[in-house]
Amino acid sequence: MSKKQQAIGVDFGGTSVKLAVVEGAELVSDVHRIPTQDFKDSESLIERIVVEIDVLKSAFPSVEAIGFGVPGSVDFAAGVTYHLTNVQGWAEVPLRDIMTEKTGLPVVVENDANCMCFAEWKYGAAEGFEHVICVTLGTGVGGGLILNGDLYRGSQYAAGEIGQMSIDYQGVTGPYNNTGALERYIGNRQITEWAGRLYDEAGVARPDDISPESIAKLAQGGDPIAGQLWKNVASCLGSCLMSTVFLLNPDAIVIGGGVSYAGNILFEPLREYLEKSLPAECFAHLAIKHARFGNTAGIIGSSALALSISKS
Amino acid sequence: MSKKQQAIGVDFGGTSVKLAVVEGAELVSDVHRIPTQDFKDSESLIERIVVEIDVLKSAFPSVEAIGFGVPGSVDFAAGVTYHLTNVQGWAEVPLRDIMTEKTGLPVVVENDANCMCFAEWKYGAAEGFEHVICVTLGTGVGGGLILNGDLYRGSQYAAGEIGQMSIDYQGVTGPYNNTGALERYIGNRQITEWAGRLYDEAGVARPDDISPESIAKLAQGGDPIAGQLWKNVASCLGSCLMSTVFLLNPDAIVIGGGVSYAGNILFEPLREYLEKSLPAECFAHLAIKHARFGNTAGIIGSSALALSISKS
Repeated sequence: MSKKQQAIGVDFGGTSVKLAVVEGAELVSDVHRIPTQDFKDSESLIERIVVEIDVLKSAFPSVEAIGFGVPGSVDFAAGVTYHLTNVQGWAEVPLRDIMTEKTGLPVVVENDANCMCFAEWKYGAAEGFEHVICVTLGTGVGGGLILNGDLYRGSQYAAGEIGQMSIDYQGVTGPYNNTGALERYIGNRQITEWAGRLYDEAGVARPDDISPESIAKLAQGGDPIAGQLWKNVASCLGSCLMSTVFLLNPDAIVIGGGVSYAGNILFEPLREYLEKSLPAECFAHLAIKHARFGNTAGIIGSSALALSISKS
Repeated sequence: MSKKQQAIGVDFGGTSVKLAVVEGAELVSDVHRIPTQDFKDSESLIERIVVEIDVLKSAFPSVEAIGFGVPGSVDFAAGVTYHLTNVQGWAEVPLRDIMTEKTGLPVVVENDANCMCFAEWKYGAAEGFEHVICVTLGTGVGGGLILNGDLYRGSQYAAGEIGQMSIDYQGVTGPYNNTGALERYIGNRQITEWAGRLYDEAGVARPDDISPESIAKLAQGGDPIAGQLWKNVASCLGSCLMSTVFLLNPDAIVIGGGVSYAGNILFEPLREYLEKSLPAECFAHLAIKHARFGNTAGIIGSSALALSISKS
C-alpha cells in the first residue's frame, strides 16, 4: 500500500492564519498560528506564512501540496483572492502563483466555506454522498455545495452563499441590499438580539451574559423562552434549507460552525420543519447531519483539496 | 457534413399529448394531438401514442430516437413515471421500456420543465451558457437547471422545483405544506386574485375578464394598479431568483411559460430587483432572458434530449 499523502492546510481567518500538516483527516503537526491583524499588507503576511511553511516542510519533507482556505471570494481557476472579509489589502492578490514560486509546491486557493464542505464530503459527515448542502452557522452564515460528486463553484466561483438567500421577500435588508437575507435572522448577533426581544416581550428579565451558547444551555435546561428562540431559528434555517432541497434535491445536508453546538435544541425542530415541508419520499432520502469537523475543517479541507487537484 | 438527425418529441400534458418529428430546433412534421383525458388508463393512452408514433415513423423513416416530456416526477435512470399532475393512472409506469419495446427505438423519459430547460440550453436563449436557471410561469411555477453544462437532476431526479421554494418563512402554505411557496404568489390564479385585491383596495372597479393577460395589457397601457401588480409579481419572482443566484451563481436565467408574455412589464422590474439585490460583479455577469420557445419547448427539448442520450 502506498504511503498516505501529506499536504499543508492553511486556514486563513480574519483573526489568525492557522497552518498544519495533514494526512487524510488527521493533523500530523502542531497548528501554527499567525495573528492576521499584526500585518498591514498582503506582502508582509505572505512572507510570514512562507516562514511557517518552510518550518513545516523541514519537519515533514514529504509534503506534496499546499491548500489555502480564505474568508471571501476567490477566482479559483486563477488562484487569485478578491474580497476577503475583515482582512485589508487582499484585493486581487495572485496568492497561488506567489506561493507556488516561493515554496516550489502546487498550491490551491479556495473559499473557506467550500473547504469546510470538501472536508465533510471527503472525510466527514457527507462522505459517500453525491449531492450535499453544507451550512456553517456563526457570525455569518456560509455554505458550500457538492453536486454530482464534486465541489460546485458556479460561473464566478461564488456559489453556495446560503446566508444571502432570502427567507422573506418583505424582510430585513442584508449586506448586498438583499431583502430577507438568512444571516440577518440567524447570525450570532441576530440570535442574541432575538433572544433579548423574546425575554422583553414575555416580561421576563434577560439572562446575564446573553449569547447563542448561553441561550442554548438555557433551552437545554427547559427555559421555554430560550426553547422558543431556537424553534424560531430552526424555522428560518428550515425555510431556507427547504428551498435549497426543492431546488437541488440533495441527499445530505451538513450543518457546522459555531451555532451548531446548540445540538438537538436546533436539530430537532429543524428536522421537524423539513419533514412537514418536503414531499415524504424526498425527506426520506435526505440525511441531516452535524458536521464532523469543528475548527479544523478549514485546514483539513484545504489540504485535501490541494492533494485532489495536484493529483488530477 | 452529416445529415441532421431526427427524433420524435412527445410533450405529454394534462390536456393533450403532442408529438412531432424534430430536426435540431425545427419541427419537420405536423404536430399530432391526442386528448389526454379521453383515456382512462395508461395502457390505452400508450396504445394510441404508439399508433401516432408509427404514423410519424412511416413518414420519417430516419427518426432515431423518441423523447417524452411528462408533467411530473420521473425516475430518469429507470425511465419510469411517478406522479403526473392532472393525469390519472401513471404511477410507476415503466414508460421507457414499454415504448422501446413497442417502437424499436431508444426512448428517454424526462420531466417537462427539464425538457424546456434543455431546449433553451441546446438551441434557445441559454445556448452557450454553462450554468442556467430556467423558470416557467403558468398555472404553476416550474423550473430546470443546467449546471456545469448538463441537466442537473439531483438525487431522485426531483431538482429544479423553483415554484416550491419559499419567499416568506411566515407566508402562505404551498402544496407540500411548504410555507411561502413561490407558486402560491405568482401562479396564474394567484396573479388574478392579487390584481382583484389591488383594485378593491384602491376602490377602483375591477376590469372585466380579469386575467394575467388582460392585466398585462392594462399595465402596458399605463394603468397604475395593473403596473403595481406586475411590480409585486417581479418582487416575488425576483426574491426567489436572487436566492437561486446566491446559491448557484449561474450565468443565465431564462424565463418562459404563459405569464412571461407580460414581457417588459415583468422583465423591467425584475431586472431592477436583481440589480439592486446582487453584488455588482455577479449581476454584471448574469444574463436574464426570455425563453425562445413557447408551446414547442417540450417537443423540441424531449427530442433533443433523446438524441443526446442515444448518442452517448
